[in-house]
Amino acid sequence: MQIVTIKSLARELNLSVSTVSKALRDSYEISKETKQRVAEMAERLQYTPNPYASSLRRRKSKTIALVIPEVADSFFSLAINGIETVAQEKGYHVLIYLTHENFSKEQAILKDFQSGRVDGVIMSVSRETSGTRHIHELLTRDVPVVFFDRVCDDIDTAKITTNDQESGYKAAMHLIRKGCRHLAYLSLSKNLLICNLRLEGFKKALEEQGMPVGESDILYCSGDPRQNYHDIKKMLKGKNRPDGIVASVEKLATKIYLAAAELGIDIPRELKVISFSNLEIASILRPSLTSITQPAFEMGKAAAKVLFNGIEKKNFKLETGSEIIPSILIERDSTK
Amino acid sequence: MQIVTIKSLARELNLSVSTVSKALRDSYEISKETKQRVAEMAERLQYTPNPYASSLRRRKSKTIALVIPEVADSFFSLAINGIETVAQEKGYHVLIYLTHENFSKEQAILKDFQSGRVDGVIMSVSRETSGTRHIHELLTRDVPVVFFDRVCDDIDTAKITTNDQESGYKAAMHLIRKGCRHLAYLSLSKNLLICNLRLEGFKKALEEQGMPVGESDILYCSGDPRQNYHDIKKMLKGKNRPDGIVASVEKLATKIYLAAAELGIDIPRELKVISFSNLEIASILRPSLTSITQPAFEMGKAAAKVLFNGIEKKNFKLETGSEIIPSILIERDSTK
Repeated sequence: MQIVTIKSLARELNLSVSTVSKALRDSYEISKETKQRVAEMAERLQYTPNPYASSLRRRKSKTIALVIPEVADSFFSLAINGIETVAQEKGYHVLIYLTHENFSKEQAILKDFQSGRVDGVIMSVSRETSGTRHIHELLTRDVPVVFFDRVCDDIDTAKITTNDQESGYKAAMHLIRKGCRHLAYLSLSKNLLICNLRLEGFKKALEEQGMPVGESDILYCSGDPRQNYHDIKKMLKGKNRPDGIVASVEKLATKIYLAAAELGIDIPRELKVISFSNLEIASILRPSLTSITQPAFEMGKAAAKVLFNGIEKKNFKLETGSEIIPSILIERDSTK
Repeated sequence: MQIVTIKSLARELNLSVSTVSKALRDSYEISKETKQRVAEMAERLQYTPNPYASSLRRRKSKTIALVIPEVADSFFSLAINGIETVAQEKGYHVLIYLTHENFSKEQAILKDFQSGRVDGVIMSVSRETSGTRHIHELLTRDVPVVFFDRVCDDIDTAKITTNDQESGYKAAMHLIRKGCRHLAYLSLSKNLLICNLRLEGFKKALEEQGMPVGESDILYCSGDPRQNYHDIKKMLKGKNRPDGIVASVEKLATKIYLAAAELGIDIPRELKVISFSNLEIASILRPSLTSITQPAFEMGKAAAKVLFNGIEKKNFKLETGSEIIPSILIERDSTK
């Protein structure tokens, strides 16, 4: 006998899988007529729900997933603490999945959630993420997804971000005020909205000051740390090297320091550096690092709060839960 | 009707849960006679296996869990990468669970694994872990558990460690050779074997050199960062302050730097510091940090390899897979 699944029901009825699934669960989003049609077809084809899936749904996994690129970054490790604070109150486990900045790994992880392993997902996309079908597929299965920091523009859900464009602008203006005349910007990826927004702010500042932005002044770093080090060193060895750098993520700042030390370039005298960073040790680096510090812990907390609203409240619309929490510029010795 | 579980079967038969469970799964460890007895009782009481659990067992979760205290530590973030390298080859997901150094959280997490959510567990215990029943319970359910770094002495399974005692000895000897006459040691917990082994090595060096070890020279830090900062500052403010410190974990070294800066104590002139640490930025701290660097990536890889042996090979004895991978002392400016 052929097994009747929601998928085959949907095909038979010429409806989407998500509609059929919602109808079977008596969702408020589905009309009475459609529910009636689905119920009749389910009876006629002797559809029985997958016991594994429904057992999971009944018992709720009491687990949320956190999907992030890496943990060796103080922004993410602080955000985790914010998320866990809220999850603990709710009696939930937090599972952390790392994509290692790899798109296909991210897709595989989200696929794994389709079986009902988790009740909701908080994520920050990888630098390689160039499509959003894997996220849409989760949403159609009624698994709530909330973004923080690295968001996808075209997905309609809660997004917890910081004032990225404004922060990029402030970072560039800070360097200009400190006397820099040739600025460079280090991005992690053309795919990442946060890097692009920070770059927009950076460019805006330079345009306002009548400073040109050369193509070689924007360095798109790869996911490989050694390659990043190599590329930054190459930039600093060039004849036309910058006297000020804005690093869009923390791990690039470390590479600038290491490359400058290797080349004997004095920070801040010959090169000023400002980086987006939440490093507790920014103040004990040599020299201490001027940083744009994101409200990592608060962003994590906000993301978890809105996710639990999505899990617990029946008619809560996730997309109404977006929030922008501003970052702070902390001046230290690297831009003196 | 009362539900018949493996537990009630075991009670009725006066056998352990693990024996009954193994007998039902026709394990080679159980005698024919016992299997016969269990099968008869199961039939008499109309025992049916939990469909949720057995469905999970059939489909194998293709997931391993990593249970660690925190991720804001470069040792753990590097070890994660080692583990994921192996898991990826095997087509497994790695779930990361954080205990935040909390024993009851660690117990709750392991309890969650009893349902068959994961095929195996790699763990490093919390600083508060004072019992091992939660780990024994997993092992009796045939979920393989492998330790790395922070191990439990009385559990018979694979343990991937470094040469902790020897490293503690080397760290102290290094400070003594650099002219220190009054050493202090910072521990994270009396419960942690790694901290105790490193302390033993530390004490051995001092005894060999005829140097006294005062009670106040061993500082047991709490789990709270602010409290740690406060306690270290107090130690450095005292009349009888040390001129050399061995920090048993990375996060304590940062606090020493911050406290010394606050108090105007010059590192390394007035105070030399050596720490167990895998910080990439150890070399760009002010001053650069002399460290005992653990083979974090390799330890993660080794732990994952032995775990997969336990998952994949039927008669593999985990306890034969233990390994000690040595650490390296890297001299930098903080002990000059």
